[in-house]
Amino acid sequence: MRAEIISCGTELLLGHISDTNATFLAQSLASLGVDLYHVSQVGDNQERVVETLRRALERSDLVVMTGGVGPTEDDLTRESISALVGEEMRVDPVLEQELRARFAGRDMPERNLKQATLIPSAQTLPNPRGSAPGWFVQKDQKIIVAMPGVPREMYRMWEEEAVPRLAPYLGGTIFTRILRVYGMGESTVEERLGELIHSSNPTVATYAKPDAVDVRISAKSATSEEAEKLVSEAEVQAREILGALIFGTNKDTLASVTGSLLQARHQTLSVMESLTGGLLASTITDFKTSSSHFIGGIVSYSTDLKAQFGVPRETIERYGVVSEETAIAMAKAVRMEIGTDFGISVTGVAGPDELDGKPAGTMHIAVAGPNGVVTGMGPGWRSSRSDNKRHAVNTALNLLRLYLEGRVEPK
Amino acid sequence: MRAEIISCGTELLLGHISDTNATFLAQSLASLGVDLYHVSQVGDNQERVVETLRRALERSDLVVMTGGVGPTEDDLTRESISALVGEEMRVDPVLEQELRARFAGRDMPERNLKQATLIPSAQTLPNPRGSAPGWFVQKDQKIIVAMPGVPREMYRMWEEEAVPRLAPYLGGTIFTRILRVYGMGESTVEERLGELIHSSNPTVATYAKPDAVDVRISAKSATSEEAEKLVSEAEVQAREILGALIFGTNKDTLASVTGSLLQARHQTLSVMESLTGGLLASTITDFKTSSSHFIGGIVSYSTDLKAQFGVPRETIERYGVVSEETAIAMAKAVRMEIGTDFGISVTGVAGPDELDGKPAGTMHIAVAGPNGVVTGMGPGWRSSRSDNKRHAVNTALNLLRLYLEGRVEPK
Repeated sequence: MRAEIISCGTELLLGHISDTNATFLAQSLASLGVDLYHVSQVGDNQERVVETLRRALERSDLVVMTGGVGPTEDDLTRESISALVGEEMRVDPVLEQELRARFAGRDMPERNLKQATLIPSAQTLPNPRGSAPGWFVQKDQKIIVAMPGVPREMYRMWEEEAVPRLAPYLGGTIFTRILRVYGMGESTVEERLGELIHSSNPTVATYAKPDAVDVRISAKSATSEEAEKLVSEAEVQAREILGALIFGTNKDTLASVTGSLLQARHQTLSVMESLTGGLLASTITDFKTSSSHFIGGIVSYSTDLKAQFGVPRETIERYGVVSEETAIAMAKAVRMEIGTDFGISVTGVAGPDELDGKPAGTMHIAVAGPNGVVTGMGPGWRSSRSDNKRHAVNTALNLLRLYLEGRVEPK
Repeated sequence: MRAEIISCGTELLLGHISDTNATFLAQSLASLGVDLYHVSQVGDNQERVVETLRRALERSDLVVMTGGVGPTEDDLTRESISALVGEEMRVDPVLEQELRARFAGRDMPERNLKQATLIPSAQTLPNPRGSAPGWFVQKDQKIIVAMPGVPREMYRMWEEEAVPRLAPYLGGTIFTRILRVYGMGESTVEERLGELIHSSNPTVATYAKPDAVDVRISAKSATSEEAEKLVSEAEVQAREILGALIFGTNKDTLASVTGSLLQARHQTLSVMESLTGGLLASTITDFKTSSSHFIGGIVSYSTDLKAQFGVPRETIERYGVVSEETAIAMAKAVRMEIGTDFGISVTGVAGPDELDGKPAGTMHIAVAGPNGVVTGMGPGWRSSRSDNKRHAVNTALNLLRLYLEGRVEPK
């Protein structure tokens, strides 16, 4: 089954709101195994709505419309469907009664009456969360679902009213798993995956995210067990290729993965950061149970504060504040001073200007733990100060992850 | 001029991301006085991209495309444009050189080379934030702008590369100024602005941003001086209405405004934060000259660390870690210990779970300075842990701003 979404509303075309209804419906259609090839937004103009709908019905079996079913003059979805299928809108007495009941005691503006109309090919989709019912139209082997644009009304109507009516037309379900990869660019990941990228069921695709490259594996089958099996087979192959670059699945983050590892071992963490200016601690504490393992952090924007927290002034003077030696001293110092099992440090030049003769983007990272210290460096200037900070945070957390997984040799 | 947006990417049609690029472009087109009648999303399939683009060019003068300009096989925007206009893609030697320079020292996968191609009708749109340049195509009285789908790359490319090239086609020039407002919800700001919101030149519109409500004033006129004059007249009225709620204009942030005020007075700042877990320091250090005024921060996720930094254990035991008294003690302690003119503290419950019987979202903030202490509270639980953190950071920086501007009375 091929589906298409049409979102109606001039407020979308003025950028006043984002079309999150389309995102919700797209996710749901994917999980139902329905192919979605097109999403269109169109303003409150009957000619353009009719034209967009005509085209959608030419190339798709199912058209899901949101918006334009309210009572005002610029709500034109019902009128557009009626015009296109050539059927007249009539007030349905049951719907009228229900509508008037919502206005109990108050005068109902007459224009609201159009919310109680139907055409012969349409069933009504009840809307207990609002005044506008939806339409489920079946005509000439095609289906049109028309729903309100208000998300909470639409979500319920879609899941509880529309999907059950669509069930007889759907074949199979989709299962998806995401592998999260750190330490390699998207195009290289794709190249390494080779033939896997060209398979059709499951499909394998890469996506660059701010904190990782995602490898998404999706399969379609009659049952969700079969679909999951197809995904798992491809996952085994992807894991053979990418190995330790994969740090987690689905909603895992480097902060959640390292946090969970530390918590499982009853170990604790502290950080001392300059380059990242607090973003490392903030990323760690985005993980909701972080207070179980994260004890504290020092944002050491001055040499005095580093010294106050146990970094030898001699090391800073001898090697410079941006150096591997200072990074190691910072990680060891924060681990000792705050008294945690692990200490991470980040020092570097956030940019855009250079510092002490070191170019923007230079960074040194160290992780001190029970077995010694591991260090890492950044690859130079990214495109902005905030990118540099984010990149350093990812590199630091990944270094901690490799340490915890025993994949690097502490010294 | 009639415009149309095409967003390319199967991840949109699977609902993995929302099409916020279209929202950004729709807002910008509206402010440029360009009519936008259609937005389409299409997957990574050349036949469908070409068909969608063909139709867009039939009915619109300008087609703005995002996505599909990366290096991988499913990036098909360049190929689709070339197929439609009937021109061959060739590697441009200058672009190739720039691309290879980005891979300095590393092997560039050969597939990346397609990011260095052009067709005769296309100019390149530089992309300093990423590896994929855009295309500005002029053919048969129509214009196609093709840009990356990564928002931060696209935003810059649109504003700094595409819009200036479009200027000759727009009637008159547009002048825009944004007033940044903190401390009042978007709908209330809109209500207060009253008649201003309904004026047509300049237009005045409100936008909710993560760190402020933006009031965007845009005027169109034959010369930019005239347009600026129209904007300034409306600005005077808006400032009379909103007063001290306005903390800055255009690209100002609470961090840049407070940072600039401190630097102008040669004063310094430190922070001690628990609820915000490092995000306050990180936000302060996003301002690029922050090392001139920001000395350091303590992320005090444990009572011991608070005590180690001078917060009396007695205060914490008596009033609880999440209390106004503890917030005041933290702000005073960090100011003294790090030796700065101002100290900010944030303590609270980030959530989603409650802490010590205080509900998630509870927050206490204090700013200690040369004239005493001011305090603030948060308004309770927002929709997520990261929303709570961000909201506390905004509240804290705004409190510092009000203190520095002499708009609150320290005790």
